[in-house]
Amino acid sequence: MPVLNDEVPDEGDYDASRRRGEFDNITPDDFIRGSGAGNPPGWLDAMDIDHIRHQLPIVYVEIVPVRTDEFGRIAKVGTLLRVGDDGAIERTLITGRVLFHESLREAVARNISKDLGDIALPMFPVSLQPFTVAEFFPTPGVSEFYDPRQHAVALCYVVPIAGDCKPQDETLDVEWVSAEDAVRPDFLNQLTCGHDVVLRRALAWASLG
Amino acid sequence: MPVLNDEVPDEGDYDASRRRGEFDNITPDDFIRGSGAGNPPGWLDAMDIDHIRHQLPIVYVEIVPVRTDEFGRIAKVGTLLRVGDDGAIERTLITGRVLFHESLREAVARNISKDLGDIALPMFPVSLQPFTVAEFFPTPGVSEFYDPRQHAVALCYVVPIAGDCKPQDETLDVEWVSAEDAVRPDFLNQLTCGHDVVLRRALAWASLG
Amino acid sequence: MPVLNDEVPDEGDYDASRRRGEFDNITPDDFIRGSGAGNPPGWLDAMDIDHIRHQLPIVYVEIVPVRTDEFGRIAKVGTLLRVGDDGAIERTLITGRVLFHESLREAVARNISKDLGDIALPMFPVSLQPFTVAEFFPTPGVSEFYDPRQHAVALCYVVPIAGDCKPQDETLDVEWVSAEDAVRPDFLNQLTCGHDVVLRRALAWASLG
Amino acid sequence: MPVLNDEVPDEGDYDASRRRGEFDNITPDDFIRGSGAGNPPGWLDAMDIDHIRHQLPIVYVEIVPVRTDEFGRIAKVGTLLRVGDDGAIERTLITGRVLFHESLREAVARNISKDLGDIALPMFPVSLQPFTVAEFFPTPGVSEFYDPRQHAVALCYVVPIAGDCKPQDETLDVEWVSAEDAVRPDFLNQLTCGHDVVLRRALAWASLG
Repeated sequence: MPVLNDEVPDEGDYDASRRRGEFDNITPDDFIRGSGAGNPPGWLDAMDIDHIRHQLPIVYVEIVPVRTDEFGRIAKVGTLLRVGDDGAIERTLITGRVLFHESLREAVARNISKDLGDIALPMFPVSLQPFTVAEFFPTPGVSEFYDPRQHAVALCYVVPIAGDCKPQDETLDVEWVSAEDAVRPDFLNQLTCGHDVVLRRALAWASLG
Repeated sequence: MPVLNDEVPDEGDYDASRRRGEFDNITPDDFIRGSGAGNPPGWLDAMDIDHIRHQLPIVYVEIVPVRTDEFGRIAKVGTLLRVGDDGAIERTLITGRVLFHESLREAVARNISKDLGDIALPMFPVSLQPFTVAEFFPTPGVSEFYDPRQHAVALCYVVPIAGDCKPQDETLDVEWVSAEDAVRPDFLNQLTCGHDVVLRRALAWASLG
Repeated sequence: MPVLNDEVPDEGDYDASRRRGEFDNITPDDFIRGSGAGNPPGWLDAMDIDHIRHQLPIVYVEIVPVRTDEFGRIAKVGTLLRVGDDGAIERTLITGRVLFHESLREAVARNISKDLGDIALPMFPVSLQPFTVAEFFPTPGVSEFYDPRQHAVALCYVVPIAGDCKPQDETLDVEWVSAEDAVRPDFLNQLTCGHDVVLRRALAWASLG
Repeated sequence: MPVLNDEVPDEGDYDASRRRGEFDNITPDDFIRGSGAGNPPGWLDAMDIDHIRHQLPIVYVEIVPVRTDEFGRIAKVGTLLRVGDDGAIERTLITGRVLFHESLREAVARNISKDLGDIALPMFPVSLQPFTVAEFFPTPGVSEFYDPRQHAVALCYVVPIAGDCKPQDETLDVEWVSAEDAVRPDFLNQLTCGHDVVLRRALAWASLG
């Protein structure tokens, strides 16, 4: 049974013990063994999620990882380099969908952990008021945000990273540039599909750019 | 073919002319006539949506309608009285899900129009930064927000209403109370499933309560 | 006794009836007649304010006037053309200091009224959470914001204007440009001392630019 | 020459090296020795500041110190116990005015350091967008916020504290209570003059209460 790569829970998952309501007793092992209980909550096989992506908007979180100075100002901005579906290397931010019965904070934590590793030491925001909401449409030109796969509504957060980053999965590298360089058009243009707009709004919200 | 009541588009719909990408040529008429083209984008039959509600979080908007004074301060707060699924009258706010390929602004406009009528003259927010994000879970106690049907992520907005309200559909009445009365516990307690929390946060954000 | 031009209250002032605490019985007439009661609250003579400007930060409001479309999106951005201290015409936004015992909402209303006239019909924000706080320093280079006269802390708001604008006082004209034109560097560069940054952040916050 | 207690800079001050524009060469020593250069920037003697407090609004920062859990949620809220002007012990938050040529971030850092000591390890907010703006008036009843000494405009921030707190100056103790206890009316009522309102809005903004 094919599954989306980013939805397979690891055995020692950081949030293994959180409450999942009626699904508390289903473990990743059930999933791997293919128990009769079916999928654990939140994980969908590729066909299911692809079908749904054309039926309603999908909830996403999008995270701009930053390094801050001693006064909390953004000193550096992190972007990911990864191999895209077409084989070309692309620059992007941390994004991922929110799973069924997963809280936004858990989704932010899981997606940072997935891309930056387990010792990134993210400093999560106190409030879930996003600095912007990015509406990705499957039709180019409807908004600044384009996702050919789906209609996605992404709540966007800036998260300071205090620890070390170990790129994981498809992520080749995490690059840190200064806030000054991050607002330069030639840098922003490397982020496609509207992620440049998300980054520019993050910097504006943080009183940079 | 059964459809969700709130998803049937009216003929003279205010947003009939907006771009819907590849679906531009599908009209509500196709839908009513049951043309071979299938459902128009965004509208799902009851079985489909019920199935999806258990697979991933659904994007909602939740709106606190208010009357403002000449300086923009909230003078009155509007709540809806409607007949709930169990036949009892319940007090609630304006809520509705965002449809496929529908923007947040269109969803806010459509849901206000559905509950308050077409001459409510809402003054939409300039920014889509919500004052709070309410995470409704189907499991009681996981958060302050509970929805037995689904996991919903609701972006919450305060929208001043300048015109007249004509309750529609299942809405029996729109009641306006002063901001002072709205923060009283005996009033807030009439809003269930966490809508009281949404209202209290709206008032706190607006420097009231 | 010299007074700052923007601090003389008009006879039929819109907020003549608001509570001013211990100063309730002092009227603009007392001020004009030079009664023994001294200055009405909030108005300072030029020497006093100039002295204070070098002693502590001054509270300002800065307003980006906009025209919105039927969904609340910014359609046009208003800027002021005025004759600067050096005789040259400069492009700017609406700014003004908050007077003693004046609320932020009153300051926003008074400054819009001063620059755009009395029939501008501003739609004041429901929340006083500013989209940004601009810190103007008298030393160039300390921040993006520079004011040779003073250290000012400006709370910045976007205010939709529904009525007609009649430029007043030193304001020569109010010009409206589309949101697309407003983010163009050659337009933004006409706003000096950091007001371009305020405008750019306003547009980013409003999901434009 | 009398000075306000909180305005005397310490010799090893954390921000001794920051740029102060034209005043870069004035040191606290000049101040203590009473050099002919007069007061260093930002520090005012008691008579001066008392006079100004009745002439225009004073810029303040107000900080709600919190302890957060591994997902960034507020776990505990800190309040200060101190001896008030009337000799009674009062509960309050961290507040202080912004000095001339001092940035908001510096003011937040200085006031936390003053009340919680130098090893509190505050995690400063990335954005200076305050969760609320509290307008303190010298006249009771004009707003929820009352300060008999002055008209103050306080930008309010929530700041997670990662280190140890050593109460300083007039602060007798820092008490930490759970977020659940912090929203209880009998606790909130111990904070006077509107600081209870600031705390309640902080918790609402952080999705608590």
